[in-house]
Amino acid sequence: MRQNEINLLLQYPENSAGSIMTAEYMALKKHMTVEEAFAYIRDNGVNKETIYTCYVTDERRALEGVVTVKDLLMNPYEARLSDIMDPYVIKASTTEDQEEVAEKFTRYDLLSLPVVDGENRLVGIVTVDDIVDVMEQEATEDFEKMAAMVPSEKPYLKTSVFMLARNRIMWLLILMVSSMITGGILARYENAFAVIPLLVTFIPMLTDTGGNAGSQSSTLIIRGMAVGEIEPTDIFRVLWKELRVGMVVGMILSLVNYVQLVIRFPGNERICLTVVVSLFATVLLAKAAGSILPMAARLMRLDPAIMAAPLITTIVDAFSLVIYFQIACRLLSLT
Amino acid sequence: MRQNEINLLLQYPENSAGSIMTAEYMALKKHMTVEEAFAYIRDNGVNKETIYTCYVTDERRALEGVVTVKDLLMNPYEARLSDIMDPYVIKASTTEDQEEVAEKFTRYDLLSLPVVDGENRLVGIVTVDDIVDVMEQEATEDFEKMAAMVPSEKPYLKTSVFMLARNRIMWLLILMVSSMITGGILARYENAFAVIPLLVTFIPMLTDTGGNAGSQSSTLIIRGMAVGEIEPTDIFRVLWKELRVGMVVGMILSLVNYVQLVIRFPGNERICLTVVVSLFATVLLAKAAGSILPMAARLMRLDPAIMAAPLITTIVDAFSLVIYFQIACRLLSLT
Repeated sequence: MRQNEINLLLQYPENSAGSIMTAEYMALKKHMTVEEAFAYIRDNGVNKETIYTCYVTDERRALEGVVTVKDLLMNPYEARLSDIMDPYVIKASTTEDQEEVAEKFTRYDLLSLPVVDGENRLVGIVTVDDIVDVMEQEATEDFEKMAAMVPSEKPYLKTSVFMLARNRIMWLLILMVSSMITGGILARYENAFAVIPLLVTFIPMLTDTGGNAGSQSSTLIIRGMAVGEIEPTDIFRVLWKELRVGMVVGMILSLVNYVQLVIRFPGNERICLTVVVSLFATVLLAKAAGSILPMAARLMRLDPAIMAAPLITTIVDAFSLVIYFQIACRLLSLT
Repeated sequence: MRQNEINLLLQYPENSAGSIMTAEYMALKKHMTVEEAFAYIRDNGVNKETIYTCYVTDERRALEGVVTVKDLLMNPYEARLSDIMDPYVIKASTTEDQEEVAEKFTRYDLLSLPVVDGENRLVGIVTVDDIVDVMEQEATEDFEKMAAMVPSEKPYLKTSVFMLARNRIMWLLILMVSSMITGGILARYENAFAVIPLLVTFIPMLTDTGGNAGSQSSTLIIRGMAVGEIEPTDIFRVLWKELRVGMVVGMILSLVNYVQLVIRFPGNERICLTVVVSLFATVLLAKAAGSILPMAARLMRLDPAIMAAPLITTIVDAFSLVIYFQIACRLLSLT
């Protein structure tokens, strides 16, 4: 924690490798023998963050290799570090984002990672226990962003009411104004539901189902990109997959809906048909929007997390109502 | 990975400590000296998952203590393990859930954790690199559950269309049927919007804002409980906090809304008032539901993640419409 404060004083960018590293690493020299290395570790290891991964540096602190205590134990006492060290070191630069650093830990199963400056000089190490905290923090931030909030720095119970409100109000305002557009669309079809008030009662079912179907897609895609399972170049593959999923779930939802509609509203076959055709189209549209928009955001170098459930829901709402009333006007011969 | 398969054959419960552990641990005896321990590690350490944390066991494999390679290095060669080992070992039982195991790693900054059976016999260890994977997987599962999906076993691109559809359809059906209840509420107020069609155009704004406000709360609370920052016993503290946040954001949203309403619909002051009073009440209600329901689920030993955005939105939708039309009927003297 103290080290973090020092790093902050040195003004490494927030959430960079430099801001989470510690300078308490174990540095060895390549001319040392295993026996000398052990003696050196015994004398200098007490306060190091970890001694299990040691870094071999030259006189100007440039990183030359890595050697683990396991390597030392598995080699004879007289072996030289230059012979047993691994010169190909997985490392991070001070300005690298902590999310990329975390990805290196998961990909290579690391216990620690050296951090070097622009001239390959070792300035610190990041250890796996810090990365566990970083991963938890990054996941929490994604949850917050995807629920339309500005991520909080502090744990919930320690955040003030004012700060919580501040983190939430911006997106609530943006989404409220956006949903007024949806309201404006409804206003244009006032005649339709003045003639057939029954049409209004299916709006929540239609918009909610569209929102849920779209949120499912966008959540999977955003998370898939965050953990590196989905790349922006997969966009057409993902869209095609989501459209097929949309067909399957859209069919089932429409079928269930149709059955209960004809039972509840006998003699209103055309209204029932309007509702289920709109439902099917809405689900397809929602799956398409939920998969394309997060990937498009990433391609435009925006944070895909903004294209999560709240915004997707608002967008799908508007389009699903247009679809609904267009189909209604045609099938029910309204103007 | 092979070890996992063996563990599965031994039928440890899914996602338990037993199912993620490896039997490749380093066991030492307490009569050994440091020198003997090093010799033993040199001879037997090559294939061990980790040698840095060694476990001291008796002849029937019962766990007696833990000693790290750092302890060994920092003590004289002739010291006995019985004198330098730590007899208070943080451990897990084979049936313990992997989420609890992950929590022990984060709380105590562990590199590995011993897993014991019902008779305190050491059967395996879990290492931090496996826990990093577990944490990522658990976070992904929470994202999926909170977006109304059954968690998937496989990465998105490797999951079949049929399986994706199967994971999504159940919640879509449940939520679709629930939103029909909301539709039923609307049907009861047909007269109201037959008289004043304008009322309908504010429904999306009202229900969307309610849904978003509630999702913000439920997301923070569910995530807070998942990472152990919020306990179910904090329920009243959390509710009081959310109500105050709801007051602040509700006020701001209502004010912004009122200003634009009186500009857009001059001469309709009563309708404008109906909308903003309903909006304020909806936001308060959403914040209350979004905070109480996930905590109540936990108290009832259900998974709080089911009380996430989709269900909260559906519940808030129904209540916000009741509030809206009740206020409308009173303020606008409708029947």
